[in-house]
Amino acid sequence: MSADWFRRRFLPGGPLPAPRPPRPRASPVPYRRPRFLRGSGSSPGTADASCRPNARPVRSPVRGRALPWNAGYAEIINAEKSEFNEDQAACGKLCIRRFEFGVEEDQEWLTLCPEEFLTGHYWALFDGHGGPAAAILAANTLHSCLRRQLEAVVEGMVATQPPMHLSGHCIRPSDPQFVEEKGIRAEDLVVGALESAFQECDEVIGRELEASGQVGGCTALVAVTLQGKLYVANAGDSRAILVRRDEVRPLSSEFTPETERQRIQQLAFLYPELLAGEFTRLEFPRRLKGDDLGQKVLFRDHHMSGWSYKCVEQSDLKYPLIHGQGRQARLLGTLAVSRGLGDHQLKVLDTNIQLKPFLLSVPQVTVLDMDQLEPQEEDIVVMATDGLWDVLSNEQVARLVRSFLPGNREDPHRFSELAQMLIHSTQGKDDSPTQEGQVSYDDVSVFVIPLHNRGQGRSSH
Amino acid sequence: MSADWFRRRFLPGGPLPAPRPPRPRASPVPYRRPRFLRGSGSSPGTADASCRPNARPVRSPVRGRALPWNAGYAEIINAEKSEFNEDQAACGKLCIRRFEFGVEEDQEWLTLCPEEFLTGHYWALFDGHGGPAAAILAANTLHSCLRRQLEAVVEGMVATQPPMHLSGHCIRPSDPQFVEEKGIRAEDLVVGALESAFQECDEVIGRELEASGQVGGCTALVAVTLQGKLYVANAGDSRAILVRRDEVRPLSSEFTPETERQRIQQLAFLYPELLAGEFTRLEFPRRLKGDDLGQKVLFRDHHMSGWSYKCVEQSDLKYPLIHGQGRQARLLGTLAVSRGLGDHQLKVLDTNIQLKPFLLSVPQVTVLDMDQLEPQEEDIVVMATDGLWDVLSNEQVARLVRSFLPGNREDPHRFSELAQMLIHSTQGKDDSPTQEGQVSYDDVSVFVIPLHNRGQGRSSH
Repeated sequence: MSADWFRRRFLPGGPLPAPRPPRPRASPVPYRRPRFLRGSGSSPGTADASCRPNARPVRSPVRGRALPWNAGYAEIINAEKSEFNEDQAACGKLCIRRFEFGVEEDQEWLTLCPEEFLTGHYWALFDGHGGPAAAILAANTLHSCLRRQLEAVVEGMVATQPPMHLSGHCIRPSDPQFVEEKGIRAEDLVVGALESAFQECDEVIGRELEASGQVGGCTALVAVTLQGKLYVANAGDSRAILVRRDEVRPLSSEFTPETERQRIQQLAFLYPELLAGEFTRLEFPRRLKGDDLGQKVLFRDHHMSGWSYKCVEQSDLKYPLIHGQGRQARLLGTLAVSRGLGDHQLKVLDTNIQLKPFLLSVPQVTVLDMDQLEPQEEDIVVMATDGLWDVLSNEQVARLVRSFLPGNREDPHRFSELAQMLIHSTQGKDDSPTQEGQVSYDDVSVFVIPLHNRGQGRSSH
Repeated sequence: MSADWFRRRFLPGGPLPAPRPPRPRASPVPYRRPRFLRGSGSSPGTADASCRPNARPVRSPVRGRALPWNAGYAEIINAEKSEFNEDQAACGKLCIRRFEFGVEEDQEWLTLCPEEFLTGHYWALFDGHGGPAAAILAANTLHSCLRRQLEAVVEGMVATQPPMHLSGHCIRPSDPQFVEEKGIRAEDLVVGALESAFQECDEVIGRELEASGQVGGCTALVAVTLQGKLYVANAGDSRAILVRRDEVRPLSSEFTPETERQRIQQLAFLYPELLAGEFTRLEFPRRLKGDDLGQKVLFRDHHMSGWSYKCVEQSDLKYPLIHGQGRQARLLGTLAVSRGLGDHQLKVLDTNIQLKPFLLSVPQVTVLDMDQLEPQEEDIVVMATDGLWDVLSNEQVARLVRSFLPGNREDPHRFSELAQMLIHSTQGKDDSPTQEGQVSYDDVSVFVIPLHNRGQGRSSH
């Protein structure tokens, strides 16, 4: 990865540029031989990403030329068999400009020396569907949205307690007490910024895809270190876990039609017109047919965690809003995830039924206090797209990590190699640690992020 | 409590009677001197409930005569200073009639011998507001709704795996596999029955209150033991915890305008007309005033877990949809809970703005496998209304339990006395274990449920 690219993307060098609209393109990430990115080892802020090719070639429906400003980090995603990558990634240093409390119209930007920035690190994985367009846009855009959102609240982030008014002026003497009682901390502003950044990025992607006549969507998994905390924001079915010597801790949960069933059914209950009379919002063990009519059959509605029986009517024979189990579960027969970016134009095949109303772009954010955690040298975060987690459990990944790292302490590239090893272990080879030799046929992308701070590089301001 | 009452209420003796409509009344629970109910000690299915009087007298707006069928268990709720109790309780044996898989129109009821029933136990606490009417109706009705809902699915509950079709006939050979893949178990039918029973009871209360010109609502916390499992269903701000020698485990979570902020804001976002232009759905640290106009102020909207800043506009000065912190938080300036039964007629004072659309009657259900738990002799569940939890934390209650029970092993009434002791400890006496001598001025009701099975009385079929 080019350091220049990150300087261009992340480091301020004057006024923040306006978002740059991507232009229509066809083969945004052309086929490349696998190349594994090497980070600088164990210092935080470096990451090692390896990607497995998609074994089932997916050809994007869109065409165009590769954008030069995409070239800087495209090599961290690799494909062997597919023409275009649907997995995309981005990582780098995040520099947030601080400015002084100032008059609203005339804020003073202090951009002269490093002390005037909040610095952190950013890693992101995007798993596209319906083509790579949304994933590429997200990889090019989300960090800019995040930087902008963080800069909009940075005054509050660097104060001992976020002030009620961003100006810092106390309108009423009791204002700090109200903020205190609500328990609002600097980290809540970062969580809010991540939530807003995902939404802003989703809007940008919607506009850009429409303008360029492209389609598609993607999941987004982002990790950010800032002010001694690690933030993991997830919208989709990628996953991040913390692996320590004695602990495996999920840092995200997956958002799929199955895990968000009640939210999705609830929306269909409130707005039945979204189903256009073509789907039933009720869940049954399988799709019902004519011979089930009049029978009392197991079902669940939006208000139910449990199951009950209902007498089958004609309308229950419609295609279910959420159909299938586990990895096969689909929303409106179309989509396997319920959160992510893009998909503004996505419709059920041969209908005008839109999926976007059922999708959320807002991520769930987990916060990890690095000071409390006191990371040891082999404590890492593993971020990966669903291709990895389809065939390896959290515990299996942890076992692989624990068997690999101790024997490679002197290898400066051991975290890169661990990422590669995790991807190779999804190939179903003889020495594969996966159960019953399971093989992933999906794209697989992995970041390995060492958390230990060797006295340098820790995010701070 | 009269055993006859429970036989009448819970034990079948022929066809299930139709729900009995309550009649209008005024003083449903007249003042009584405190009387503490004694259970039979440590055998499951007995419970010890003690109630503290409401120190701030609340006079119900409704008047009428006490119903004779209410007298059977009213003594488990006691009041000293208030004329009418807003806390109500019910407990007893739950007998679910089993019937054979039969022809839909001609089902055979088997009611001849005990083996043909599923038996369990039921405990319920209802904390009323706006008068005791809803709480009394709930205490008289919910167990009947639950029995009816359980009897409607009992065929599925007693099968090895709930059949897809309640008739037991397999329409397609793969049906059991679909049920298996969805992971549907007998306990999911009990959870579904609890969810449906709460909703059915809410509808009954709505009809009855309207017919009798009464008002009010109540929270509901229910514990049920059935087929070796403990189910805790909660809608409101009461709480149940499991206390063991080395463990304190919450068995419920509270549903208040604060804990359900995002759901409530989301509804106001989808249906802004519910606020009639009088409220803002946004959350701020305090209510905004004219001098905040134009300032950037901390806020949260429905999609946000974190906080951000927004520029204050005129519409932000409206009264907030959810206002206040902690125990003072109110929905539409009116209600301190966001789930419960009743409140069908409740409106914001001097407006036509209804609260019911924002309230859920459906409970959250927690399931505890008693066989896996292997309860020891002093393992108990403490169920209590918010009056207790306002002044005692889970850990404080656990400490009180652990300091009381070992020294009273020979006392057959020790669980009753523990319930009384917990209530007394909310009175702010010198030996009170509460922090800084906190006193509860609310009604307080407590059930202590011993889990240990001394070889008899365990729920089974």
